[in-house]
Amino acid sequence: MATDFTEANAADAVVDSFADTPDPRLRTIMSSLVRHLHAFVRDVEPTLPEWEQAIDFLTAVGQKCDDKRQEFILFSDALGVSMLVETINARGAAETTASTVLGPFHVVESPPRELGDSIDLLGGEPCVVTGRVRSVDGTPLPGARLDIWQASDRGFYDVQQPDVQPEGNLRGLFTADADGAFWFRTVVPSYYPIPTDGPVGQLLTATNRHPYRPAHIHFIVSADGHVPVTTHVFVADSPYIDSDAVFAVKRSLIREFRVVDDEDEASAYGVPAPFRLATVEFVLERREQG
Amino acid sequence: MATDFTEANAADAVVDSFADTPDPRLRTIMSSLVRHLHAFVRDVEPTLPEWEQAIDFLTAVGQKCDDKRQEFILFSDALGVSMLVETINARGAAETTASTVLGPFHVVESPPRELGDSIDLLGGEPCVVTGRVRSVDGTPLPGARLDIWQASDRGFYDVQQPDVQPEGNLRGLFTADADGAFWFRTVVPSYYPIPTDGPVGQLLTATNRHPYRPAHIHFIVSADGHVPVTTHVFVADSPYIDSDAVFAVKRSLIREFRVVDDEDEASAYGVPAPFRLATVEFVLERREQG
Repeated sequence: MATDFTEANAADAVVDSFADTPDPRLRTIMSSLVRHLHAFVRDVEPTLPEWEQAIDFLTAVGQKCDDKRQEFILFSDALGVSMLVETINARGAAETTASTVLGPFHVVESPPRELGDSIDLLGGEPCVVTGRVRSVDGTPLPGARLDIWQASDRGFYDVQQPDVQPEGNLRGLFTADADGAFWFRTVVPSYYPIPTDGPVGQLLTATNRHPYRPAHIHFIVSADGHVPVTTHVFVADSPYIDSDAVFAVKRSLIREFRVVDDEDEASAYGVPAPFRLATVEFVLERREQG
Repeated sequence: MATDFTEANAADAVVDSFADTPDPRLRTIMSSLVRHLHAFVRDVEPTLPEWEQAIDFLTAVGQKCDDKRQEFILFSDALGVSMLVETINARGAAETTASTVLGPFHVVESPPRELGDSIDLLGGEPCVVTGRVRSVDGTPLPGARLDIWQASDRGFYDVQQPDVQPEGNLRGLFTADADGAFWFRTVVPSYYPIPTDGPVGQLLTATNRHPYRPAHIHFIVSADGHVPVTTHVFVADSPYIDSDAVFAVKRSLIREFRVVDDEDEASAYGVPAPFRLATVEFVLERREQG
């Protein structure tokens, strides 16, 4: 390390200090972090008060975290980093179902349910979701498992409203039939805001960004011999579909939840007319043999 | 914002989300942060467990902070970011004294002292520091103020050892004489480690980096009509002079603390022989007229 720290040699000096890192992967990560972080600092040339503000912000983000709240994940989400990492890790055949972030609400085990069951335990406006799970080559995947969770038609998950919603409301663990097909009843979820009572919320306010996520249903779909996918199905006509606060929308994941006003079709699903109907196919990639 | 998040358009989409930021400086900073942060992620392609580890690390850094400990500043220091920001903000005439980080130990007001006073209240091995303060054009700066603080010959600041050192030990506020000259008595400080009992310490261990700072005395030097400088004077023969854990060493700030074994010179300073002697000149830039 040089005994002279200058703007020109700063990044080199700090990268050099990591030269003896035993784990080569950690060395690569720290070297890259230093290069990009120093490039950012040289780019914006922060004043000392701006640097102090950045330190205070990061400290507040860390201190907002507890066993129920992860403000650094929220910060990562709001900067599109979570989705970028998810997307990098889900590079696969172009045809497979695209992945999105897991999100912070997969905290309760989804109760096992039978095909056709309603995951809406409170009796809201009925919605039917049908679909099937197949492999990239078209083969149906019998017995595929679907872990499903969503917000209510008011935009809240069960765990956010313990006094209003029973635990397990709008959650379900389903097993596809012999044709890889599945269906369940629910309500159409509402858009909702990410938590705004912390430093990330203050940042959104200061930058005129809204905190909303467009309406969506979460899925983790898995099948033997295949790579599982963590994804959302988005409601096509939802507000904020073009400006998700966490950047999770992919066009291929948007579905019409169309209004069906047909008594025969309604009675086939055991719901009153009119009802909403969405159909989705999940395509999984075959797992490479070790 | 596009309704399709891809690796290729991710950074653009997130930068676009900040387009309505009212404060143009904040918009610039957030846009640059997103560009560099996404470039880092695309560069290292973190796995999901690596991303989770990064979230956990940053959370632990934030949670280690309290009113006496600022682990995010320590992280910034250990990545050379604090020194880079300091250096960018202290661009001036090449001839002025170079600046370094303030550090975390300027927490007690330095007691006013007379020229020649000892800041060592415990009677260690004597050291004399002499020098003067001048303007870039050579004009002496009478009445220049020097705020001075340092670690002991065991490597601890007074505030770290409240049971051993009296408050104000090895701290002093001096006023230069009519020629801009100053001198004071002290002990030669020791090198010391930055705090290692937090996540930054764990990072240093994992990367085989030592936590030590070479021996130094802190100065904030100010004079009417001039830009103050926050700096260190480093002890030339100190261990770690070539590998400061926070990258604060600049060659121009290193001084010999030479052994003087001369009774006449010793008695002129009112110390026993042998003693250590260092001389330093501080050069301040004239403040531009608003």
